[in-house]
Amino acid sequence: MHITKDAIESFEKDYRTHLINSLSGFKSANLIGTQDESGNTNLAIVSSVIHLGAHPPLVAMIMRPHSVPRHTFENIIQTGVFTINQVNSEIVEQAHQTSARYDKDESEFDATGLTEQYLADFKAPFVAQSKLKYAVKFVDHQHLNINATELVIGEIMDIHVDDIAVMDDGFLDIELINTVAISGLDSYHKTRHLTRLPYAKK
Amino acid sequence: MHITKDAIESFEKDYRTHLINSLSGFKSANLIGTQDESGNTNLAIVSSVIHLGAHPPLVAMIMRPHSVPRHTFENIIQTGVFTINQVNSEIVEQAHQTSARYDKDESEFDATGLTEQYLADFKAPFVAQSKLKYAVKFVDHQHLNINATELVIGEIMDIHVDDIAVMDDGFLDIELINTVAISGLDSYHKTRHLTRLPYAKK
Repeated sequence: MHITKDAIESFEKDYRTHLINSLSGFKSANLIGTQDESGNTNLAIVSSVIHLGAHPPLVAMIMRPHSVPRHTFENIIQTGVFTINQVNSEIVEQAHQTSARYDKDESEFDATGLTEQYLADFKAPFVAQSKLKYAVKFVDHQHLNINATELVIGEIMDIHVDDIAVMDDGFLDIELINTVAISGLDSYHKTRHLTRLPYAKK
Repeated sequence: MHITKDAIESFEKDYRTHLINSLSGFKSANLIGTQDESGNTNLAIVSSVIHLGAHPPLVAMIMRPHSVPRHTFENIIQTGVFTINQVNSEIVEQAHQTSARYDKDESEFDATGLTEQYLADFKAPFVAQSKLKYAVKFVDHQHLNINATELVIGEIMDIHVDDIAVMDDGFLDIELINTVAISGLDSYHKTRHLTRLPYAKK
């Protein structure tokens, strides 16, 4: 099927949102834990977390400051810290529920039943039920004029991971801890390992 | 297991690369098709393609201009166009092989056996074996000073997708066309659908 640019522009909003959200492929499923200066906690599911580099260890994500995760963005700017918690298949429904429009003084932890956890004196809350999570120090954000989003960049600090995921070469087998992938806006997937391939040579 | 920031800094380079690459979660698997002004084609696997927005329809990816996909970045800047082709389980080995260090005048299409395809008068090459692919017009790039990477932003033009993936609400079921996910540097995964969840309300 050939879907032209004109056709894309003619689709109604929801249809187009589903279609365009499907194009990038499988996305990571992460919960971003923050709190504001008064200690109000916030938790938001984000599908745009990406690896930015290993030397230094950096992660990035796209935030839409004018949509639901705006409290997350505000808290990151205010406090300079956040946590990233991988979503596993046991907490998919609760993780998805964090995308509802809760007020700033309502914690998504309370609303969804996910458990706040504080580790190694880090100021931002972790999700107890997540089996791979890490502390992140906010480094920079870049405003993307084209659609008023923000690329948020963070430095990876301490990592907390279930022992069974840690392989001999440093690779974390996130399939063993049931990490899920997202496709489109709202579709969640488990994975089945196909292969690990060696460094490609000519 | 608690891996401290100090421990991360002390790991040898490859171990650290595997570890940090595992943290973001499952990543998309896409082949970027380009050509230079002389018509030399290039194909590069990229795991950093993300959805940037649906209105306008935008996609973004991180490129490391000083590492393997540098020809891709140069071609995009030169010609203003590229294609994104989802990797499916039938072409995982060939897709991975595009990450080898071929010279600029060697086409990864020839080297891997993937087939160049030209669709709807678009100047950049598609991958015939991909079941979901789209034409992208280069819009902007932003240099990320922190690690000398580039965020490349593109506008989604025509889409070419296998009919069986197109659902009634615009969602593309990329599991039906065997799109794979990547974890870490080199691990490839098929998926198994868990659930689609409704728009979350308080």
